[in-house]
Amino acid sequence: MKLLRVGDPGREIPAVLGDDGDAFALTGLTDDIDGAFLASGGVDRARQALAAGALPRLDTAGRRIGAPVARPGKVVCVGLNYRDHAEETGAAAPERPVVFMKDPSTVVGPYDTVRIPRGSVKTDWEVELAVVVGAEARYLAGPGEAAGHIAGYAISNDVSEREFQLEYSPQWDLGKSCETFNPLGPWLVTPDEAGDPQRLGLRLSVNGEVRQDGDTKNMIFDVAHLVWYLSQYMVLRPGDVINTGTPAGVALGLPGTPYLRAGDEVELSIDGLGTQRQTFTDA
Amino acid sequence: MKLLRVGDPGREIPAVLGDDGDAFALTGLTDDIDGAFLASGGVDRARQALAAGALPRLDTAGRRIGAPVARPGKVVCVGLNYRDHAEETGAAAPERPVVFMKDPSTVVGPYDTVRIPRGSVKTDWEVELAVVVGAEARYLAGPGEAAGHIAGYAISNDVSEREFQLEYSPQWDLGKSCETFNPLGPWLVTPDEAGDPQRLGLRLSVNGEVRQDGDTKNMIFDVAHLVWYLSQYMVLRPGDVINTGTPAGVALGLPGTPYLRAGDEVELSIDGLGTQRQTFTDA
Repeated sequence: MKLLRVGDPGREIPAVLGDDGDAFALTGLTDDIDGAFLASGGVDRARQALAAGALPRLDTAGRRIGAPVARPGKVVCVGLNYRDHAEETGAAAPERPVVFMKDPSTVVGPYDTVRIPRGSVKTDWEVELAVVVGAEARYLAGPGEAAGHIAGYAISNDVSEREFQLEYSPQWDLGKSCETFNPLGPWLVTPDEAGDPQRLGLRLSVNGEVRQDGDTKNMIFDVAHLVWYLSQYMVLRPGDVINTGTPAGVALGLPGTPYLRAGDEVELSIDGLGTQRQTFTDA
Repeated sequence: MKLLRVGDPGREIPAVLGDDGDAFALTGLTDDIDGAFLASGGVDRARQALAAGALPRLDTAGRRIGAPVARPGKVVCVGLNYRDHAEETGAAAPERPVVFMKDPSTVVGPYDTVRIPRGSVKTDWEVELAVVVGAEARYLAGPGEAAGHIAGYAISNDVSEREFQLEYSPQWDLGKSCETFNPLGPWLVTPDEAGDPQRLGLRLSVNGEVRQDGDTKNMIFDVAHLVWYLSQYMVLRPGDVINTGTPAGVALGLPGTPYLRAGDEVELSIDGLGTQRQTFTDA
């Protein structure tokens, strides 16, 4: 099942896609797709209501699509989690997941404009598989327990300003937390429909030129390992987002470091999770 | 003025202290002390209602005190911001603020029990002056604009697990984000009452032994600089918390590295901002 949120920022209508691709409103079931909805069996209720034909059709023509989960409590990111990306940045493949965070208010819709921060000359892209947490996870016994805590998957663009991230201090969060730096969506795709999260091709192009073309099979630490690992050090809560790392092909690692400029169009897709597209503009 | 929240976790009653030290409930004015309350002039409304004698007295005897602000959208931390602390950790004084983040769900009440994570042998303390954001800050023109964006100040214990923070990866957030790792409060003290934020003594003791005894005048980057600086790279939103760094005297820098063990009692105080006290226990 594909969950989504349709409408202007802060006033999105929760919805689900039917088999024919049409959207149906969940407003009779929930105010929003958020941690409370996910924690309380909302996905199952939505599935039953959709199957029963109990949901009103929602016209999405010309309407904005928001991030598929509202107000994540945190956005946890995993760095250098594809061997080829670690190599292109000159870093060794890590022995443990490299964990950092983004300001959760950076999460925006999949087609929203992304703002290049003032003074930035190194704004970069990162296509990533995002995991949305569905149930509280604390000290999971092993990676085998992870699946029960995953609500689903989405495309994430972990936009990064490399000067702020790498040159201003040894800590990365500053260059990851600029306004609009985390387009998410278009959909939250449930695990039954997404299939094996380690067999998903993920691609990113800039102005039509393919820059990233990877596969989640090449993650150093897979999704189940990451959820288990993180649960040993922090509490994962429903609605939290985990950005699981990016494959090779970011501007930082390309000849000539072709960082983003105002007017650039970035398109991201992951098998089964849809397509995002953002125009970059000066903040 | 001193704002506080009284009651069990998730069901705290918003309140204010009168001149006699008694608490008065704000329930007629607001559901909670949160970003929406701070952004909408709630502090002024509370001040007027208190002066008018319009607030009901609230009995706090034997009741839990929560963090003075509900659900911060983010907790931004500044590392190595006191010269003596930078020295004790073996780091050079930074040329720019070192910025990282904690999971905002780590924020708990000032007297709540703090859990030492499973497997931890290096759980450490950090007394810090916390700034609570009162108005959205984006690209402030200079430090002189910071004051208009500060709701007030509170004591923060930026609890840190040094092995998770420093030995597992180069990124610190993992060792900063364990459950209960950010006691905050007891009060949110408004700037008019807190006075000059760069003239506050701050102290921390463990089992009665003084470990930290610093002064905010020794910050490398002062509060106004930090608010201005952060606003160049991220949007500070009402209710966000900034932990402004810790002075010397953490376990990491002391002879014998006396990290915290179950049963230890930690007490923190900052001039005019009250006192916190936590018992540490095994998670």
